[in-house]
Amino acid sequence: MSGTAAIIGGGVIGGGWAARFALMGWEVWVFDPDPEAERKIAAVMANAERALPMLYEAPMPPRGAIRFVSTIAEAVAGADWVQESVPERLDLKLKIYRDIVSHASSEAVIGSSTSGFRPSQLQEGLPDASRIVVAHPFNPVYLLPLIELVPGVKTAPEAVDKAKEILTGIGMYPLHVRAEIDAHIADRFLEAVWREALWLVKDGIATTEEIDNAIRYGFGLRWAQMGLFETYRIAGGEAGMRHFLEQFGPCLTWPWTRLTDVPEFNDDLVDLIAGQSDEQSGHRTIRELERQRDDNLVAILHALKGREAAAGKLVLDHDALLRGPLGDGVPLVTVRRTVPVDWTDVNGHMNEGRYGQVFSDASEELMTHVGADRAYIDAGNSYFTAETNIKYLAETLAAEKFFVETRVTLGAGKKLRLWHEMKREADGETLATCDQFLLHVSLETRRSCPPLAHVAEAVERLAAAHGAQS
Amino acid sequence: MSGTAAIIGGGVIGGGWAARFALMGWEVWVFDPDPEAERKIAAVMANAERALPMLYEAPMPPRGAIRFVSTIAEAVAGADWVQESVPERLDLKLKIYRDIVSHASSEAVIGSSTSGFRPSQLQEGLPDASRIVVAHPFNPVYLLPLIELVPGVKTAPEAVDKAKEILTGIGMYPLHVRAEIDAHIADRFLEAVWREALWLVKDGIATTEEIDNAIRYGFGLRWAQMGLFETYRIAGGEAGMRHFLEQFGPCLTWPWTRLTDVPEFNDDLVDLIAGQSDEQSGHRTIRELERQRDDNLVAILHALKGREAAAGKLVLDHDALLRGPLGDGVPLVTVRRTVPVDWTDVNGHMNEGRYGQVFSDASEELMTHVGADRAYIDAGNSYFTAETNIKYLAETLAAEKFFVETRVTLGAGKKLRLWHEMKREADGETLATCDQFLLHVSLETRRSCPPLAHVAEAVERLAAAHGAQS
Repeated sequence: MSGTAAIIGGGVIGGGWAARFALMGWEVWVFDPDPEAERKIAAVMANAERALPMLYEAPMPPRGAIRFVSTIAEAVAGADWVQESVPERLDLKLKIYRDIVSHASSEAVIGSSTSGFRPSQLQEGLPDASRIVVAHPFNPVYLLPLIELVPGVKTAPEAVDKAKEILTGIGMYPLHVRAEIDAHIADRFLEAVWREALWLVKDGIATTEEIDNAIRYGFGLRWAQMGLFETYRIAGGEAGMRHFLEQFGPCLTWPWTRLTDVPEFNDDLVDLIAGQSDEQSGHRTIRELERQRDDNLVAILHALKGREAAAGKLVLDHDALLRGPLGDGVPLVTVRRTVPVDWTDVNGHMNEGRYGQVFSDASEELMTHVGADRAYIDAGNSYFTAETNIKYLAETLAAEKFFVETRVTLGAGKKLRLWHEMKREADGETLATCDQFLLHVSLETRRSCPPLAHVAEAVERLAAAHGAQS
Repeated sequence: MSGTAAIIGGGVIGGGWAARFALMGWEVWVFDPDPEAERKIAAVMANAERALPMLYEAPMPPRGAIRFVSTIAEAVAGADWVQESVPERLDLKLKIYRDIVSHASSEAVIGSSTSGFRPSQLQEGLPDASRIVVAHPFNPVYLLPLIELVPGVKTAPEAVDKAKEILTGIGMYPLHVRAEIDAHIADRFLEAVWREALWLVKDGIATTEEIDNAIRYGFGLRWAQMGLFETYRIAGGEAGMRHFLEQFGPCLTWPWTRLTDVPEFNDDLVDLIAGQSDEQSGHRTIRELERQRDDNLVAILHALKGREAAAGKLVLDHDALLRGPLGDGVPLVTVRRTVPVDWTDVNGHMNEGRYGQVFSDASEELMTHVGADRAYIDAGNSYFTAETNIKYLAETLAAEKFFVETRVTLGAGKKLRLWHEMKREADGETLATCDQFLLHVSLETRRSCPPLAHVAEAVERLAAAHGAQS
């Protein structure tokens, strides 16, 4: 499902929304009075179009255009989704909402990226506030799936349902927040941590870099995959959460929980932190840091996708949504995707092992096509690869798009032989070929056996259509 | 470097220390009066010996034994490192430290796993407290690298240096904390977040599961790789940290930062949280959750290792420490490692693409052996694989140990041909073979060219020794 999105307010957050919508096939209209908005959003889009497609095995939808207009009225006319990401000033936001609701369709969802305001605050004094929700994203918006979706007192339930459907469709995870509070959920944690971090730096306990290391070498790794409570549940052992609470509850009142004042925010503190941060990261440009962050996030999300866990499971599910059935062409196009950054090696190109993975994916697609799908495998049957011969004809680079054409060159009894050609999307050049020989097996005995009848027939049909030897 | 470690207090944390030391080749002596200690540590060790070796490409050192003794005196005699992980009661700890210092070598480092106490508190009233430091780990101790290393007022500088050396040697990251405060650094953040989380659950804003999702689908992913300040530096854009601070500093005093009271910790709150946690995770045993956590952590650490980023960079550096030069045997053993969990596929075994990666790693080791190492590649020369023929002879499962024997079957001019046999460590069965043909290339022109003289000679020498065709 795709549609038209209006982005009110560019910048890093608005640009992230624009990029995600456009890459998921939506037409995007941007309003931002900043003369630099077009340049800024282009920079976000350059990062996004490199990173986001790397998460998917499915082909991405045809990209929507991003267009810039000079009034809110033009931007929101015909929009299915309006996203406001202007600075955190309530008077400014209220003025803009009056403009939005008088020009947007009464069917459009109107989302706010606000980190702090409650949706009911944004709904005040409007003739129709029923479509307004908080849809609070996390930077980089084009990679992180979380959206805190918060309805206000005047929000219609249908607007919430529609918002969930649209957000899921563009690969996000709408977390429906049960009650409105300032700063929703995640930013309350971020604020608590930020306050503690400022004290630690101010008091000379740790530098900005030491604090970053304390997070990313320790609990940050836990939180990327399980969050807080499930992690602590494990710490409680077999006795479960209750035991953990009883063990650690009392330390809530220990002295080290009392440092909850707000440190005075003055020039000295800004100098101290900015100076340490410059020393830590100042040798790299923001563009380099963004690229590094995105590469790391792609690699982590990819890793979790392989585990079918945490945010990786969300990507996996979205991948299935994007994926259509294979056509009936000869040859079959079994894979169409982008090379993710974690597939490259010291030579700066796709590692030879990843070609094997690509051709493995191609044969898995073909298996699904002939009925040897996940259910067939779960029932105890599969094909195992017995031999491959791969010729590496041209280098393949990170972020390059490619596709694989597959022919069945032998399909008789237990034997299945496939011929794959991997080609660059841009010019059709053949990057590699693979002659792959598979045997049908029982997953119980782990020995070869004939396929079930419907699979055998489908394989034979394909083999005949592809002009295979018999 | 390895040695002897004394573990005072088993349980999840002490067991994690015991497992990490033993897997890194240390002899381990455990004292814990709990009659269940041996069973509990065996359970931790079962998880650890599955997960930790998956992080490394280098062969693991020969494993040290874990032995149980009935007195502290027996445990600490001859220990290079004594680690105390008893419950968080100061009187108990002080009693134990008196016992430890009167029996341990004056050269031993004595580390405490305490989350809350300052090292100077632990040093009170002892005849010699100069070797005592806080060495605060994070669960699971066998996977997470962070150690908060905090010296007390009586700690000798040499003890800190020795502690750093030993911790680095077992793959940990000693974060030398500049000043003693209650709860060091990371737990101050954890406590702040925990307090906020209790409020959110108590006030009905979010359930335990929703809070976990708010973390792991959003900022948890950021924190696993960059931590707090570098992430925010990016948010500040080209103007850097100062701009971020100026933009977000004021909201420190907004109303949503005031919720810093400690919620009353009573039965109602315990029931509420334990009930929600049971609903969220109660269908899985602690063992299953631990396995899932460890698999996720291995996959994330692996992904970051490939990026040479964050905690993955630590693993990479430790891997290099563990790795020795290849011998001079015929054939050469080029790879000796464990199958990580993220290498398996829907058939429950190692994916065919990963065989390609293994043989790619084998040829990279051989390249290093003949002088075509990282410096050679950085100077613009390398070998590219042109063709591989892989025969898959037996299934390979996650956590299985294997090695690869490599022969040079052709080494003349630009051409290099290798024959790899991948064998299971347990019984020597051949799992797969690979006939691999490589061409020497210039990384500037990306075309084939002869290798530099020293590499050409080394290749020819090996080819002759391996009885290659000429």
